[in-house]
Amino acid sequence: MPLDEHGLIARYFAPFAGQGAHGLLDDAATLAVTPGCELVVTSDAVVADVHFFTSDPPASIARKALAVNISDLAAKGAVPVGFVITLSLNETCDENWIEAFAGGLNEASQFFICPLLGGDTVRTPGPVNISITAFGEVPAGQMVMRQGANCGDYVYVTGTIGDAALGLALCKTPKPAWADHLTPAESRDLIDHYLHPSPKLALRDALRLHASSAMDISDGLAGDLAKLCKASQVTSTIQREKIPLSVAASKALFVAPELYDMIITGGDDYEILCTISGAKASAFEEQARLCKVQVTPIGVINEEGGLPVFVHEDQNMTYTRGSYSHF
Amino acid sequence: MPLDEHGLIARYFAPFAGQGAHGLLDDAATLAVTPGCELVVTSDAVVADVHFFTSDPPASIARKALAVNISDLAAKGAVPVGFVITLSLNETCDENWIEAFAGGLNEASQFFICPLLGGDTVRTPGPVNISITAFGEVPAGQMVMRQGANCGDYVYVTGTIGDAALGLALCKTPKPAWADHLTPAESRDLIDHYLHPSPKLALRDALRLHASSAMDISDGLAGDLAKLCKASQVTSTIQREKIPLSVAASKALFVAPELYDMIITGGDDYEILCTISGAKASAFEEQARLCKVQVTPIGVINEEGGLPVFVHEDQNMTYTRGSYSHF
Repeated sequence: MPLDEHGLIARYFAPFAGQGAHGLLDDAATLAVTPGCELVVTSDAVVADVHFFTSDPPASIARKALAVNISDLAAKGAVPVGFVITLSLNETCDENWIEAFAGGLNEASQFFICPLLGGDTVRTPGPVNISITAFGEVPAGQMVMRQGANCGDYVYVTGTIGDAALGLALCKTPKPAWADHLTPAESRDLIDHYLHPSPKLALRDALRLHASSAMDISDGLAGDLAKLCKASQVTSTIQREKIPLSVAASKALFVAPELYDMIITGGDDYEILCTISGAKASAFEEQARLCKVQVTPIGVINEEGGLPVFVHEDQNMTYTRGSYSHF
Repeated sequence: MPLDEHGLIARYFAPFAGQGAHGLLDDAATLAVTPGCELVVTSDAVVADVHFFTSDPPASIARKALAVNISDLAAKGAVPVGFVITLSLNETCDENWIEAFAGGLNEASQFFICPLLGGDTVRTPGPVNISITAFGEVPAGQMVMRQGANCGDYVYVTGTIGDAALGLALCKTPKPAWADHLTPAESRDLIDHYLHPSPKLALRDALRLHASSAMDISDGLAGDLAKLCKASQVTSTIQREKIPLSVAASKALFVAPELYDMIITGGDDYEILCTISGAKASAFEEQARLCKVQVTPIGVINEEGGLPVFVHEDQNMTYTRGSYSHF
């Protein structure tokens, strides 16, 4: 006989629930906040066939659903302290699917040291829908905001840009022509970026100490930079050739220069975009080096004056629909 | 030109967002917890055509989505301090729908003094899906648990039972035969219970001071009582004739006695079920009277021994699938 909701929760989710979850047997969890700190709260929902493929491995879906929330906490300078999940499941989600999903969630929860606190499980006649709300802590008043970038600040990004968007393109049928120019390892690496984002949690203290503003890049560099600039009432000038690319992305771009738009407007990077004043730049870079997060200055903040400008050779480009919007 | 996601959020949701929401312009909210208190965190998701009708008024859907979470906070003895919402919308949700939904959410947020802190909005090819995580505060360690009912404790419920389940039956086509025996006002009242739950937030202090265990009744009295008893490793004996019914429910039951199962296993009551020791019963009843919440003792807690028993005349009844499960 298949397990009911409570049986599934008890078997697959309760074993890795945190202390405040009370064994997932109550209607609510408790969460104590460290004195002197405040909570940072972020929510992200993902929907099958919008944000992931129904055929993606359930463990990968789970890890990504948590990772995209952890990425927000990282960008805000927060230490994760827990999360809740609401899972809307449909008839395609048998016990094997749920076991694999819970396994991936458990692994991600342990990796990010972010315990499961509670949630809700419901049936839907529609696509699988996963909503996670994650909690982090910062010393009171020290959340790193989108707002705060100042003229003259350097614009930094972590990691490399565009890999997930290219990875997503590789998951589609037919495969793009440029795929033939990549080694199998390079293709796997791009797809892995799409399936398994690695939020730059190690950078959280450096951001809190040095960044004038920050956000994670989830909807494409161009669009997210425009949002950060708008919140700070500034604009920016980016040197396109300084945007860090992986070897695989560089190879793809070499054979298909038109991929550039996908690289800087595609989604799912889950890198961090931040601004650092000139006075703090070397200390920030040093701290990033110590915590093994690659950071690259790609441009500067300018006075308000419209959309961020991407400079390439003699051309100045802006992206009016720069953001890959799921909405 | 229709507004994009950010335009819709800025126009309809940001005006009633709380202080920690930072104008809904950031990726995260901040939430400061009163010293000496801890957070109570609860999540409930609702899905169109599972938990509500797509044709329900959007303002009612919004109020109910928040109210079902507030009901959990009330049962845990917590004061609401804020909520986040993830909204998965489809092509049926035009700007009028969103405006009405946001209006209902604003009204409920003000009524429960529970500010909007943030969330996420995504598109879905499936039914509308609304997930709310609500936050309350209790003095540290004082959340009222499901676990804690002791032998000899009285079992209490607030309000009247079964009205929402009957109201839901009245919303369906064809109308049930018993509907003809109700006045239009009585029918409206039952439907109103289904559409607009009123969480018994006023009882929170009385519960924290006096209850040995509590939960809200969302999935039917019989099933939820069984869950409370299981968590507390006890069982209970309920006097069926003591279960408080509205005039409308009593009339319906008079002409259709078979409705009794629907009344005690139907969902959506959003009343509170709690257990109170004999020593505290009169103080609890007095405090409930002062805060104008009707409370009724319906039975007692017994030593462990299976499902709760509902006694009616010479019959002892148990409900093996007593809970209306959405899963």
